[in-house]
Amino acid sequence: MAQASVTPTPLLKDELDIVIPTIRNLDFLEMWRPFFQQYHLIIVQDGDPSKTIKVPDGFDYELYNRNDINRILGPKASCISFKDSACRCFGYMISKKKYIFTIDDDCFVAKDPSGKEINALEQHIKNLLCPSTPFFFNTLYDPYRDGADFVRGYPFSLREGAPTAVSHGLWLNIPDYDAPTQLVKPLERNTRFVDAVMTIPKGTLFPMCGMNLAFNRELIGPAMYFGLMGDGQPIGRYDDMWAGWCMKVICDHLGLGVKTGLPYIWHSKASNPFVNLKKEYKGIYWQEELIPFFQSATLPKDCTSVQKCYIELSKQVKAKLGKVDEYFLKLADAMVTWIEAWDELNPSAAEQPNGAGK
Amino acid sequence: MAQASVTPTPLLKDELDIVIPTIRNLDFLEMWRPFFQQYHLIIVQDGDPSKTIKVPDGFDYELYNRNDINRILGPKASCISFKDSACRCFGYMISKKKYIFTIDDDCFVAKDPSGKEINALEQHIKNLLCPSTPFFFNTLYDPYRDGADFVRGYPFSLREGAPTAVSHGLWLNIPDYDAPTQLVKPLERNTRFVDAVMTIPKGTLFPMCGMNLAFNRELIGPAMYFGLMGDGQPIGRYDDMWAGWCMKVICDHLGLGVKTGLPYIWHSKASNPFVNLKKEYKGIYWQEELIPFFQSATLPKDCTSVQKCYIELSKQVKAKLGKVDEYFLKLADAMVTWIEAWDELNPSAAEQPNGAGK
Repeated sequence: MAQASVTPTPLLKDELDIVIPTIRNLDFLEMWRPFFQQYHLIIVQDGDPSKTIKVPDGFDYELYNRNDINRILGPKASCISFKDSACRCFGYMISKKKYIFTIDDDCFVAKDPSGKEINALEQHIKNLLCPSTPFFFNTLYDPYRDGADFVRGYPFSLREGAPTAVSHGLWLNIPDYDAPTQLVKPLERNTRFVDAVMTIPKGTLFPMCGMNLAFNRELIGPAMYFGLMGDGQPIGRYDDMWAGWCMKVICDHLGLGVKTGLPYIWHSKASNPFVNLKKEYKGIYWQEELIPFFQSATLPKDCTSVQKCYIELSKQVKAKLGKVDEYFLKLADAMVTWIEAWDELNPSAAEQPNGAGK
Repeated sequence: MAQASVTPTPLLKDELDIVIPTIRNLDFLEMWRPFFQQYHLIIVQDGDPSKTIKVPDGFDYELYNRNDINRILGPKASCISFKDSACRCFGYMISKKKYIFTIDDDCFVAKDPSGKEINALEQHIKNLLCPSTPFFFNTLYDPYRDGADFVRGYPFSLREGAPTAVSHGLWLNIPDYDAPTQLVKPLERNTRFVDAVMTIPKGTLFPMCGMNLAFNRELIGPAMYFGLMGDGQPIGRYDDMWAGWCMKVICDHLGLGVKTGLPYIWHSKASNPFVNLKKEYKGIYWQEELIPFFQSATLPKDCTSVQKCYIELSKQVKAKLGKVDEYFLKLADAMVTWIEAWDELNPSAAEQPNGAGK
């Protein structure tokens, strides 16, 4: 006993994969070593497959480049974006674990106000393992946290909460702004540490950022499709937003919870606002039609699995957003391909009554 | 200029009343002197009218006891609770100002993490004077605060927000728990300072606590009825909850915003959990029917003023909650009396197109 390793086994060590999309060497992992080294990494290379990505020694990982994705998915590889970090969702699909944490390679370890380094992954796991409260707002935020509870007037019948599907973390330093806001406020930095985790209420949409995100793959995985972005597509930087809107509609339908707030990561560098504007500008005006679409989307009762919900949503996208731009016709088809590919790679999930596919 | 007073004129000095329900001498005001002394106070005495309430020197106030309420409202005084802090809503009605801040007499000045005393009223005013964002959740919380903004993916058409009707503040030290939670966790104290203000999304209900609350009387005043509690009534401690649920349904219908979060006050002493249990127990099980009622309540389009909305809601209370207990029949009648009394005391508001009364 006395000779045992001093490194304790971290939470969910064998039940969670860390998915990282990248085009460069993963030196950023050095800073995360104490927190990530015992977990398995899935690296998805989003650019030229002939380039070699260097991963620091000591990490346990598998790496997929475009050639691998094409080989594994065949013609269905068309649903995975190329030259865009949206390709990360291939990692969600190929994983065999129950939980996913995904992080961008320009995100570093943040410090809390006391100066202590924040173990972002540990906080995500806490968020995912305790329930959400989507049906009624608790004014002291997460009622399951130490030192907090449900306040007076919170119905007792709702205090068991709902299973948590998604944990959305935030960013200190460079905030996740769109190109117009980046251009207007180039020097703005997020310095406010808000010590809260909260559930996004049922019926409310939010902008889900893919930079620092965790989810329960068994509960919601097939809804985490990051769409068609990047090479050959008319927009970019809406991959995580798209996934967030689809996912939230499905979580609301299935009675699952979505949390936002802690943990923070340190976002080190702002992307180029001029490049971003080019990627975003169509999204910025399409979005004005997408939001009302998702706000009013309802799913029929017989959609009892994420796959069924997602296929139904793809039909509604085709029928209602196809007129906004033909891009959405292509996207609706890709949504179906995504589910087909998911079920091919995850046959047991597809056979389960609560994951029955099309 | 050099001889001018060093005390600057505080925000909304002549447009805001501070409403305090009490049964005791108001020594607690000493601590609030630097923040409240330039404002006008409306004190509502909630117990024996023969008792004299002492107010520290230097405060500008008017005080109403039960005899005053009976004299001013005549038979309509029946809608104002007796021997319960719910009587505070008489102060909302008699005020002629645009804004109300209400605070309990066991609430003291809290300190922020840097040790600085928090000017709760100033924060409430900031909350009320800047818009809310009820239609879409912003992950960096209040986008109008210094150092924050709308994040990527927030629709531009929604960035003007909605007028803010209510600012709900929180409490450090003694949390606002119900009797069962007080009994189970007698030593729990709220020590977590969450540096955030957020909008409660449209369609989401929350437990509104009346301890530390501000609102725009012109926008939402007639919905801030604290119901029938205390002497002669079967329940207590649901006065603010009732107001919060009615108010939220009406704000959602009229497109108004409700914020929660900062400012904190220091809540000094827990009320007796055994006494509270006696007051609450019917509310605790009635509430299980009240919440689905309010969650599904809708108001017709021709309800264009708060008064019209409130009268319509009283009809729905009578029709749907009357079967839960006959108390709700009495409460529904009192809701109508409240609006009649409000319009009598506020005739100009009743004549305005956007406050047209019954």
